[in-house]
Amino acid sequence: MKPQDIEDLSFRIIDEEAGDHGFDEQKWSIVRRMIHTSADFDYIKSVRFHPEALQKGIDAIKNGCTIITDTNMARVGIRKKEISRFGGDVRCLIADENVARQAIEEKTTRALAAVDIALPFIENGIYVVGNAPTALLRLIEHVKAGKVMPALIVGLPVGFVNAAESKDALMELDIPFISNKGRKGGSNVAASIINALLIMADSSEKPK
Amino acid sequence: MKPQDIEDLSFRIIDEEAGDHGFDEQKWSIVRRMIHTSADFDYIKSVRFHPEALQKGIDAIKNGCTIITDTNMARVGIRKKEISRFGGDVRCLIADENVARQAIEEKTTRALAAVDIALPFIENGIYVVGNAPTALLRLIEHVKAGKVMPALIVGLPVGFVNAAESKDALMELDIPFISNKGRKGGSNVAASIINALLIMADSSEKPK
Repeated sequence: MKPQDIEDLSFRIIDEEAGDHGFDEQKWSIVRRMIHTSADFDYIKSVRFHPEALQKGIDAIKNGCTIITDTNMARVGIRKKEISRFGGDVRCLIADENVARQAIEEKTTRALAAVDIALPFIENGIYVVGNAPTALLRLIEHVKAGKVMPALIVGLPVGFVNAAESKDALMELDIPFISNKGRKGGSNVAASIINALLIMADSSEKPK
Repeated sequence: MKPQDIEDLSFRIIDEEAGDHGFDEQKWSIVRRMIHTSADFDYIKSVRFHPEALQKGIDAIKNGCTIITDTNMARVGIRKKEISRFGGDVRCLIADENVARQAIEEKTTRALAAVDIALPFIENGIYVVGNAPTALLRLIEHVKAGKVMPALIVGLPVGFVNAAESKDALMELDIPFISNKGRKGGSNVAASIINALLIMADSSEKPK
């Protein structure tokens, strides 16, 4: 079987087992890819979309926006060839020298310093958090302070300390987000959301 | 909270909620990290260890072995600084030019060609499959044919087509493996297993 045939068959299996999930076609194309990446049907119940999330995300990608990720795992999980075709790029600053220096100077973590240093790139861009609740909380802080407004925030930190809480804080905001309830998430699932949006941007479909 | 404090608290929460899991200390340090990465307690039931897996994996890392991953996500998820300290390295050949060329010449996939081209590096090394069942099946084929014997195979492909079957095929072999039953897995979880082994290698503890 070719990779595309395997993906098609996987999607048919997911469709069948998911049954009547209640998502429209566009949202299901995202949730289905999250399940494809994780083999975890829990996302059907836990995922949350801000009403403008898909449109804003697709438009931003089409406009060649910068995508910032909190981890290199999320960065390498995003299809760069398609992003480049739109003139965009994907960056992760966690291993950046300036981030390391600022974290030491300000006695903070690299995860926090990476958000602060990314601010100039996030305006109208997409911020992807697949790992660090502290990064998502810092980003929310900047948004609330009016310092920055991303086109879309994909908030999928995973874990046992503040992951669920940071996502709840995101979902209280009236700004474009894709996120989920609870502890689950991860860089792989976060990247899969961007890849689903990319495919929609590529096929030039608009969210319904 | 500092990152290390967050990890420590996460581990205490996992310990508490997992209850009486039945793993010894060494194995639990691996399963706990898989749960930490995925927030998914299912791994307690699904994970499988070949009896020699931990010892062989730790020894290989200490000997500075090469670790080959099937995805760049798994590669960047592995702590390279610690690997380098032992003299080892982590490589993923999926985007290698030779792999792309051979896939075209032999009318196969890059995932398969990447395994074939990796053979010289795998002997006594560690092979990590976090995504592609076809890669794991190809590796098993080479092992059965006596062409190569890795020190350890971490087999954690995820998905709906052949992931579970490829892992079942691995677990039938009497060679060092860490794997799991079912569809779940992924590059992030696979990388977490190597990181747990790294920490054990680093603390110079031997499996009990």
